Amino acid sequence: MRRFFPILDWAPGYNRPAFAQDAMAALIVTIMLIPQSLAYALLAGLPAEVGLYASIAPLLLYAIFGTSRTLAVGPVAVVSLMTAAAVGNLVATGTPEYLGAAIALAALSGLMLAVMGMLRLGFLANFLSHPVISGFISASGLLIAASQLAHIMGISAHGHSLIELGGDLIAHLGDINLPTLAIGGGAVLFLVWVRGALKPLLMRFGLSDAMAGGLAKAGPVLAVIVTTGLVWMLGLDARGVAIVGDVPSGLPTPALPPLDVALWRDLAVPALLISVVGYVESVSVAQTLAAKRRQRIDPDQELVALGASNIGSALSGGFPVTGGFSRSVVNFDAGAQTPAAGAFAAVGMALATLFLTPLLFFLPKATLAATIIVAVLTLVDLGALKRTWVYSKADFSAMLATILLTLGIGVEAGILAGVVLSLILYLWRTSRPHHAVVGRVPGTEHFRNVARHKVETVPGLLSIRVDESLYFPNARYLEDLVNDAAAADPALRDVVLMCSAVNFIDSSALESLEMIDHRLQDAGIRLHLSEVKGPVMDRLERTDFLSHLSGQVFLSQHEAVTRLGAAGAPDLKLAGA
Amino acid sequence: MRRFFPILDWAPGYNRPAFAQDAMAALIVTIMLIPQSLAYALLAGLPAEVGLYASIAPLLLYAIFGTSRTLAVGPVAVVSLMTAAAVGNLVATGTPEYLGAAIALAALSGLMLAVMGMLRLGFLANFLSHPVISGFISASGLLIAASQLAHIMGISAHGHSLIELGGDLIAHLGDINLPTLAIGGGAVLFLVWVRGALKPLLMRFGLSDAMAGGLAKAGPVLAVIVTTGLVWMLGLDARGVAIVGDVPSGLPTPALPPLDVALWRDLAVPALLISVVGYVESVSVAQTLAAKRRQRIDPDQELVALGASNIGSALSGGFPVTGGFSRSVVNFDAGAQTPAAGAFAAVGMALATLFLTPLLFFLPKATLAATIIVAVLTLVDLGALKRTWVYSKADFSAMLATILLTLGIGVEAGILAGVVLSLILYLWRTSRPHHAVVGRVPGTEHFRNVARHKVETVPGLLSIRVDESLYFPNARYLEDLVNDAAAADPALRDVVLMCSAVNFIDSSALESLEMIDHRLQDAGIRLHLSEVKGPVMDRLERTDFLSHLSGQVFLSQHEAVTRLGAAGAPDLKLAGA
Repeated sequence: MRRFFPILDWAPGYNRPAFAQDAMAALIVTIMLIPQSLAYALLAGLPAEVGLYASIAPLLLYAIFGTSRTLAVGPVAVVSLMTAAAVGNLVATGTPEYLGAAIALAALSGLMLAVMGMLRLGFLANFLSHPVISGFISASGLLIAASQLAHIMGISAHGHSLIELGGDLIAHLGDINLPTLAIGGGAVLFLVWVRGALKPLLMRFGLSDAMAGGLAKAGPVLAVIVTTGLVWMLGLDARGVAIVGDVPSGLPTPALPPLDVALWRDLAVPALLISVVGYVESVSVAQTLAAKRRQRIDPDQELVALGASNIGSALSGGFPVTGGFSRSVVNFDAGAQTPAAGAFAAVGMALATLFLTPLLFFLPKATLAATIIVAVLTLVDLGALKRTWVYSKADFSAMLATILLTLGIGVEAGILAGVVLSLILYLWRTSRPHHAVVGRVPGTEHFRNVARHKVETVPGLLSIRVDESLYFPNARYLEDLVNDAAAADPALRDVVLMCSAVNFIDSSALESLEMIDHRLQDAGIRLHLSEVKGPVMDRLERTDFLSHLSGQVFLSQHEAVTRLGAAGAPDLKLAGA
Repeated sequence: MRRFFPILDWAPGYNRPAFAQDAMAALIVTIMLIPQSLAYALLAGLPAEVGLYASIAPLLLYAIFGTSRTLAVGPVAVVSLMTAAAVGNLVATGTPEYLGAAIALAALSGLMLAVMGMLRLGFLANFLSHPVISGFISASGLLIAASQLAHIMGISAHGHSLIELGGDLIAHLGDINLPTLAIGGGAVLFLVWVRGALKPLLMRFGLSDAMAGGLAKAGPVLAVIVTTGLVWMLGLDARGVAIVGDVPSGLPTPALPPLDVALWRDLAVPALLISVVGYVESVSVAQTLAAKRRQRIDPDQELVALGASNIGSALSGGFPVTGGFSRSVVNFDAGAQTPAAGAFAAVGMALATLFLTPLLFFLPKATLAATIIVAVLTLVDLGALKRTWVYSKADFSAMLATILLTLGIGVEAGILAGVVLSLILYLWRTSRPHHAVVGRVPGTEHFRNVARHKVETVPGLLSIRVDESLYFPNARYLEDLVNDAAAADPALRDVVLMCSAVNFIDSSALESLEMIDHRLQDAGIRLHLSEVKGPVMDRLERTDFLSHLSGQVFLSQHEAVTRLGAAGAPDLKLAGA
């Protein structure tokens, strides 16, 4: 029970001090979440109220199913961008079908996440390597910023790649609306200043660190209030400033998402990508915060919780959600103790939906765009390219490909290319494994590469360490390697394959080992194995390979060299390994 | 020069004894090749003479470019089946477009092989694992036999899967032509008898082993002569026995393949699969025969040679070819010394094309089908399924999937599914690596799994050996592993990660190691590494990981335990590894 309902872990012991802290955190998160949820709905191409709806049910459901004490779920930038790309490919923006498709996407992604969680397939997310996810998030940040530039300038630009967006922006540069630019540009400058300079300033005025930090977080709300007031007072909407306009008030009516088979099929791949990207982002936030308080999260249960959150979002007219970085950090810093803080924030969002929407009428879209731009630019970390280049050219290639394809073609192409390229590079690497001829480090029983260390070797005895599991992509490579080594030394009598780095041997490699043994036998050379690991040995013992092997299997390389190094090594087979 | 024209290795020293042996081998191979080439053209859905054309230019070109002394190239069963599947999907059988597409397929496959050879991409063929290729060839053998059953019964059956073929066969069972069945069935029985019983019988009559073997190989030619004579004398063609009919005599006119972009694009995937399957088959035959005489082949040059052979086949009106198993073994056994034997066989085939074609008019197609059936049934090795099951369930799954999809859907689906499934199973395995807590084998410096061996451990010191390279699919798994191990022992002071099986550490895993180190530090535990391999250490030294690491890097696990096992281990960093 507790595994599936982590709420049972904390709800029974819930007390007043925890309530006080959770309620305070919820208040701060709600204030932060109102402009964010409106802005990300705009980014996803959806009406503003959809952002509010997506910030109520998901928070409540995560409080029941989630294992992180402090994660805050809701609309986030990257997932909103991916939603816009997925839905925008299928239906025209602004139509009821567009909203329906976004809701269906949340439902489908929620179902996928829940099923993956129940089947404990959380490890699948590991196939998004660090360079790919980092490159993807940087590129997404740039794409998002570019798409919001249009809103700040009061022009329209569409497209799912930087090329399309940039072209559209340039083509419409003549249409810039100056009042919009003044509001949007002003908001950007203000938010950048708030982010960088406000907190130190407040602290100089004697505010505590926590208080100053909290006030600085309220910057976006202040920008929303001030610019909304300006538009209202100066009548800027009549001068071309796009405003949010009528936002229906009242809670969303629960409804099923559109059950259209063709639509769901078209959304399947994007839904999978959104699920995996959202999950990876959310789990890494949750893990980082949990580690700070020595708590643990259950990655598979997190899938279930995010699945429930997305299904809840869909049933209440929302779009795909996941755990957000900045709001979770705010929640954590504000002292949230349990997921109840999230539930209280949901209540706050519900109240906002009920009572605040009339106040949003004059809110300029340019202000929301400004909050998005300032938020996402912190996601862009192009310095990671350089760090990765230094460490690994292969990882760098995967990262660069992800960035270029995300920017040049779109989010789906980018992430798929990154995953596929990382796998290909890995397979290519294992298909030509590193190997070393080894000798004994003098005075020890330890064996190292003759080319790197001062070691002792025995004439007529060749010890090769292959630094890779033996499997089909490198099986023939091994044959060539041993053949060439044997051909190079006419005095060779024994070859020892040191298997300390061989984690398994598949059928193809077993076939190759048999071939190698036959060929060496023909040349009067014996093949031995050393340091064969338990699981590998178990498997070999199920075949007749060991009974045909010309040489022996030694527990350690040291034993192999000691026994074979003595003239006329005895013809023993060693039992067990 | 010699690398690209291996003929320069042997032609300058060519002498009379080699000529005599090569000429004898060529005669035997030619006799064997005439019915085979006609039969495989029939199998590919092509006119009989196309088989003859495909057995002239490829043999000559292989003699120039090939590195095997005894490989005989030409039409083979599996590649002919794949040709029928690829071309049959695009154009109707029996049309000039069908022939054109087969010629284009040979050209495209030849170009792909030649390019792969020049780029030295031979290792790509290694991705066809042994279980996949073995399953594929078995399933192809069954498919081919089923497709030829129709010819033996004188009915028509089409389809690229066993289901389609079987359904068609059953639907037409009422149309069986009895004279055809008598000839076809008789030929099958005769050939099976020749294969099993003729050689021992001839030897009992006092013939030498080689002579008896040679005569037994002439079985198909005898069947062709006898059944052709029967049809001619009894006028069986008028009673419904399908015959080869008019075969144009004379050598093929060199011509370019159809240069149709859409056609080439449609043929790209089949051409790649045919290239890789044909190459794997050919190279394994060549390697086996070369090893018997202690010769070597160059796998990348073999790609060039097969590429040239296929381009030659296309330019002379032939279809895709590769090195064949049975004819190469015959060539080898008959004493062929150099690729000149192949060139002489090409001359034999050219003479047959010039002068023998009128004699083929009454040759019943059922006889050719019988030779195919008897030849391909030796390819079917379903016992391999059981052997693979015992050794590895993963390899068994890949093999079974290949067999079932090849039979159920077709050759392309089968081979692609096999390759993809093998890779997925491998990645899945490496994503949850085997690991062991290790201790010292008493009286040695060797460390093994505490669960399998009687070993010594030191309290407060945990040594974990992870049996896999650390990379993105298993990076988080490692974090969980160390976290759980650290949480389980409150007295823990030092963790040593024994890296003898870690062949590389990618960026994602480096990130995870940093995370592990931070978390352990928070818990007052130091993280050490031991037995880090040279290339891995080189890479780590390019980062600041080692300077932040709470513990040390030890050359050997023995050294780590000796140094850390002493109370109050010194806070040293070890230079180099």
